Amino acid sequence: MADINREWLLVQRPQGEPKPSDYQWRESPVPEPGPGEFVVRVLYAAMDPAIRGWMDAQGNYMPPIPLGTPVRSVVLGKVVKSNVDAHPVGQIVSGLGAWADYVVCKPGYVGPVPVEWGHDLTTYLHPLGAVGATAYYGLFEVGKLKDGENLLVSGAAGGVGSLVGQMGKIKGCKVVGIAGGAEKCRWLTEELGFDAAIDYRATKDLSAEIRKHFPGGFDVYFENVGGATLEAAMDNMAMHARIAICGMISAYNDSHDPPPGPRNMWNILVKRAHVEGLLVSDYMHRAMPGYQQINDWIKAGKLKFKVDVRDGLENTPEIFNKLFTGSHDGKLLVKIGDA
Amino acid sequence: MADINREWLLVQRPQGEPKPSDYQWRESPVPEPGPGEFVVRVLYAAMDPAIRGWMDAQGNYMPPIPLGTPVRSVVLGKVVKSNVDAHPVGQIVSGLGAWADYVVCKPGYVGPVPVEWGHDLTTYLHPLGAVGATAYYGLFEVGKLKDGENLLVSGAAGGVGSLVGQMGKIKGCKVVGIAGGAEKCRWLTEELGFDAAIDYRATKDLSAEIRKHFPGGFDVYFENVGGATLEAAMDNMAMHARIAICGMISAYNDSHDPPPGPRNMWNILVKRAHVEGLLVSDYMHRAMPGYQQINDWIKAGKLKFKVDVRDGLENTPEIFNKLFTGSHDGKLLVKIGDA
Repeated sequence: MADINREWLLVQRPQGEPKPSDYQWRESPVPEPGPGEFVVRVLYAAMDPAIRGWMDAQGNYMPPIPLGTPVRSVVLGKVVKSNVDAHPVGQIVSGLGAWADYVVCKPGYVGPVPVEWGHDLTTYLHPLGAVGATAYYGLFEVGKLKDGENLLVSGAAGGVGSLVGQMGKIKGCKVVGIAGGAEKCRWLTEELGFDAAIDYRATKDLSAEIRKHFPGGFDVYFENVGGATLEAAMDNMAMHARIAICGMISAYNDSHDPPPGPRNMWNILVKRAHVEGLLVSDYMHRAMPGYQQINDWIKAGKLKFKVDVRDGLENTPEIFNKLFTGSHDGKLLVKIGDA
Repeated sequence: MADINREWLLVQRPQGEPKPSDYQWRESPVPEPGPGEFVVRVLYAAMDPAIRGWMDAQGNYMPPIPLGTPVRSVVLGKVVKSNVDAHPVGQIVSGLGAWADYVVCKPGYVGPVPVEWGHDLTTYLHPLGAVGATAYYGLFEVGKLKDGENLLVSGAAGGVGSLVGQMGKIKGCKVVGIAGGAEKCRWLTEELGFDAAIDYRATKDLSAEIRKHFPGGFDVYFENVGGATLEAAMDNMAMHARIAICGMISAYNDSHDPPPGPRNMWNILVKRAHVEGLLVSDYMHRAMPGYQQINDWIKAGKLKFKVDVRDGLENTPEIFNKLFTGSHDGKLLVKIGDA
């Protein structure tokens, strides 16, 4: 156990992509838990696009990260000191933490993960964590995907997108993913079983390309990207199509001057479409049935996933920015400590 | 009964607002019904924004009006010749017809109206017709309005909008309407009981104006306008807000170069909002319970409405364009014949 606590503080609201000067490195003693608190040694931090929104002054679905405090992040770690019976020392937990060696936690925001299922710990930050719950509840509760429907996924090679597409295949759907680069597209079709993948970087007319695969339109679109991708998708809705808006990473660094929305909003009426926003936090209190199903699929070899584990708390700001350039390969995690 | 049939044919796809040269006037003998058909003397034609969409080559939720055929329109009329037992001569019917003195009808597209309720015939083209059904099913089934919620309506002085707002008041909601002009706004608040009306023509910052009335956001937004109005509304959604998209009249004459969509699509995610398109045709096969409820409200004096009846088939193209300038006062109808 490190005998100091190293943390990345947010000291300035980023303009566009975060810069090194937006952060400050702090070293201080390992914290002690107060009454009703416990201290977690962070083992992994998950690099989620949502963090970028929390860095802005207006916040989004969570309050902004206060300047001068550690960057909020989903983490997985081990309880090392505890004043809470339900969270004894040694328990492996996950939930809202920070880019730090140690975080002080309260019950509710951080809870135990089902280590008895025997997976590598990183799995609890991907298919058996918020990523998997987002895919599962977004696809089946918000998107209301039915067996055999036509499913379009953007950000398809990302953590959520790659699970969404595979869940669609498990349900007998025709699945088309949108991703950036030939290698990612090859992974989707050859390894994950997507019916097709569209490389948006190599595509001049994304709308027409989607239409080639879905001449009658898609039933469900799982949206991780936004912007021009959303507009192209909205050209290709089947009657009563559903769009689950999970993320809009294309705009996350433009929050002060967001790009125009889709010009074809009118199609929502024509197609009696249903567009709904999704935040996994609404589902976390009842996520266990989803995790159990996902665990079964993993054990049956039906659900593959990739984690891209990078090393070191000290590199976290730099690693985080890879989210926005697409230069990562699987769910991006930072390894911070050893179990 | 006129002894000729006068019709307005569409002979050219309009660019922007329809021009006189887009139409052609034709006079021909009164048609005879074929087997399984009946002929209706048109008494009133309803001027609906949807007609503008049907004039475009790409159509929308209905096929385009073929060039060289009469302009499709919802009408009310009287059966004058019939080969269908269920539609005897003298029956008052409503449904899809045309800008014409006579239309040849098949069962299914045109059906009898409940004249036994004793209303003026124009009422069956407004609260007891597709307009009322749009308001009722859009508000309660798509918008899922609950008693006491906050309701925002655009196009509030229009046929659908004015009914929507009053239905909201019947359900104990706080209702704010958006309309153009002081006189319309006064009508909404003083005569229809809206809590407030925003005159968009006199408002520089519509988003801020909405926020004044709904500092915590609206629960339901009933959208008739689109464009900048939709964007302003989407700044002001309460958590789990619902937006029923009934119309987007601001864009109907721009179909070849639609304006950008809302820049704040991201809010759909943040607020876990639900945006859904609505077409009344999906509800017409089961509209009677809605009509019965609306009839009860009318008889109880709880639902007021205005029809703006203009005279003469020959003036129909000119009257139709008033929809897009807002220079009408209530549901715009053209009187074509006498009962």
